[in-house]
Amino acid sequence: MTFEEARAQFPMLERYAYLNAGTNGPLARATGEAVIEQTRRDLEHGRSGMAWFERVLELREAARLGLAAVLDADPLHVALTDSTSRGCSIVLSGLGLGAADEVIITDQEHFGLTAPVHAAGVRVVVTEADEDAIVAAVTPRTRLIATSHVLWTTGRRLDLRRVREDSGIPVLVDGAQSAGAIRVAAGEFDFYTVSAQKWLCGPEPTGALFVRDPEQLRVTAPGYLAQTSYEPTGAFAPKEGAARFDSGWLATPMLLGLQAALATHPEWRYERAAEQAARCRELLGAHVDVVTPAGHSTLVSFRPSGDPAELVAALDDAGVIVRELPGRNLVRASCGWWTSDEDLQRLAAGIAAAA
Amino acid sequence: MTFEEARAQFPMLERYAYLNAGTNGPLARATGEAVIEQTRRDLEHGRSGMAWFERVLELREAARLGLAAVLDADPLHVALTDSTSRGCSIVLSGLGLGAADEVIITDQEHFGLTAPVHAAGVRVVVTEADEDAIVAAVTPRTRLIATSHVLWTTGRRLDLRRVREDSGIPVLVDGAQSAGAIRVAAGEFDFYTVSAQKWLCGPEPTGALFVRDPEQLRVTAPGYLAQTSYEPTGAFAPKEGAARFDSGWLATPMLLGLQAALATHPEWRYERAAEQAARCRELLGAHVDVVTPAGHSTLVSFRPSGDPAELVAALDDAGVIVRELPGRNLVRASCGWWTSDEDLQRLAAGIAAAA
Repeated sequence: MTFEEARAQFPMLERYAYLNAGTNGPLARATGEAVIEQTRRDLEHGRSGMAWFERVLELREAARLGLAAVLDADPLHVALTDSTSRGCSIVLSGLGLGAADEVIITDQEHFGLTAPVHAAGVRVVVTEADEDAIVAAVTPRTRLIATSHVLWTTGRRLDLRRVREDSGIPVLVDGAQSAGAIRVAAGEFDFYTVSAQKWLCGPEPTGALFVRDPEQLRVTAPGYLAQTSYEPTGAFAPKEGAARFDSGWLATPMLLGLQAALATHPEWRYERAAEQAARCRELLGAHVDVVTPAGHSTLVSFRPSGDPAELVAALDDAGVIVRELPGRNLVRASCGWWTSDEDLQRLAAGIAAAA
Repeated sequence: MTFEEARAQFPMLERYAYLNAGTNGPLARATGEAVIEQTRRDLEHGRSGMAWFERVLELREAARLGLAAVLDADPLHVALTDSTSRGCSIVLSGLGLGAADEVIITDQEHFGLTAPVHAAGVRVVVTEADEDAIVAAVTPRTRLIATSHVLWTTGRRLDLRRVREDSGIPVLVDGAQSAGAIRVAAGEFDFYTVSAQKWLCGPEPTGALFVRDPEQLRVTAPGYLAQTSYEPTGAFAPKEGAARFDSGWLATPMLLGLQAALATHPEWRYERAAEQAARCRELLGAHVDVVTPAGHSTLVSFRPSGDPAELVAALDDAGVIVRELPGRNLVRASCGWWTSDEDLQRLAAGIAAAA
């Protein structure tokens, strides 16, 4: 697949310089058509009966397989979820931690991670977003390190393999800005939670959670599909592997759409996305203060000379889609494998015009 | 709106005698077209930017308003969820109960209710599905009664207002088989959880949770939309009212579809559905042992003379969709306001042919 062919899958890219996959990825025509196809089918033939349920279960297993491949993980260790945040909740509530236990997070995490940590009722230790700072914060009471592979704010990538090894503490990785953007090997960690509607360009809301040792995590919000048998008290025999953590029903049209979305990504996706992020840094460096370190991720965050919200609005008017990071005086551009040089030039020109 | 006009909204009813809204309701053309419209819009214009987010938030509030109307409740007390089960989890995990606390359930509950009760780590007290039996099971340790308004198995309706008054214990109502099927006044209870993809004919997965006193329930799985402000530790100021319990992102196409779905129901829906259920009982009574008491709900459960799974399959072949209740030797027909006399005659004829 050439770059032009691969990019042509996304109708919106004909119109917009879309640089916000860190929020939601662009949708491919095939993804949208799959959602529409299943919706029409459900409209004409309904949403029940043996054949329909079998199809739903097949689509779920296909989604699990596809997401496991992105995570370079065994599908047996992958649960289907509706978001990165849901994965955080499943892990934090399932560990059975209490007020005497410490969980380390950094000061650059998304609310989708910090809120479940807070809700677990543990002592929350906030460090700088830096490998050494994280490891230095470990005490005998530390039960978990919960942090992002790629920070959604600065785009910095943390060496979490090193953090895992140096600390000896279980690590929950927030992969919202990594899965589909950079190569991931979830098996190096204890828990890895991702979203599929961002860099994987899937329908909302879809995601996955990798769990290395499913037997060691309690199922705190069991859905019907979590079990193989149950008693009138609600006691149940969980499914083998991480499927017991499947977080609930995913819409059938969205499952078919996810299957299509996972098939849109070319082999050269990670290399190309990294190249375009490097090119973006270079182009923007002439106009603004880029805070993302070179070679870290597919995000490029920068401090504009003027008001970030005004810049984002002005760019939006010009069909250039980026986002503000409120309270941080930053604007963030997400570079995907589908990003063209022209997209980046439009961004740079828009920034220059606003300066 | 005449019956013929109202029924004609559902393309699948031209083909099938669809009697399984207790699993998933039929989809109206307008509902499917709304899902498709938003999917096309997202395909062409993407899923981010100020205007898109404002639209999503408006659609969420419209859904909250529509679901609150069905529950005869103040929207301020209604959270948006993705299922009845999610509502049960939100309540059970939020009450902060422990091993010394008792929760009463009946022996006719769905796993979507019993599993969250079990997961809460409480002492589970299982009674017969009967008002007196429930009240008799109350002890000084009882913290919650969690049971269905309409039992998904037998279709019996429980007088939970009486249970609430006689016991003085907070009641969590599983409204999966009531909301949209019979008149509901959620405000009579402490918690009322419903699904919108069943009797309300909404897209999957959608639902709502009524919470009478939001301040008294902890937010254990906070989503981004739960808060008005937050700190780096994850501590947050919750939104006013029950919106703090909103269970996560709902797909934008599904939100638009839900709005369309909530507009399909005629004023005479509850009366007509009750009439058709009565007619169904009458017709089936000639062939099988009907277990649903008269005048209770829109479900008609019956014990067939032969094997239930074989009967369901034979009916399916004839375009008549009902469901088996595994392990209970029962088959269940769901009668909606859209159900025609011909649908019921097809069911009766299919049962007679199989006998």
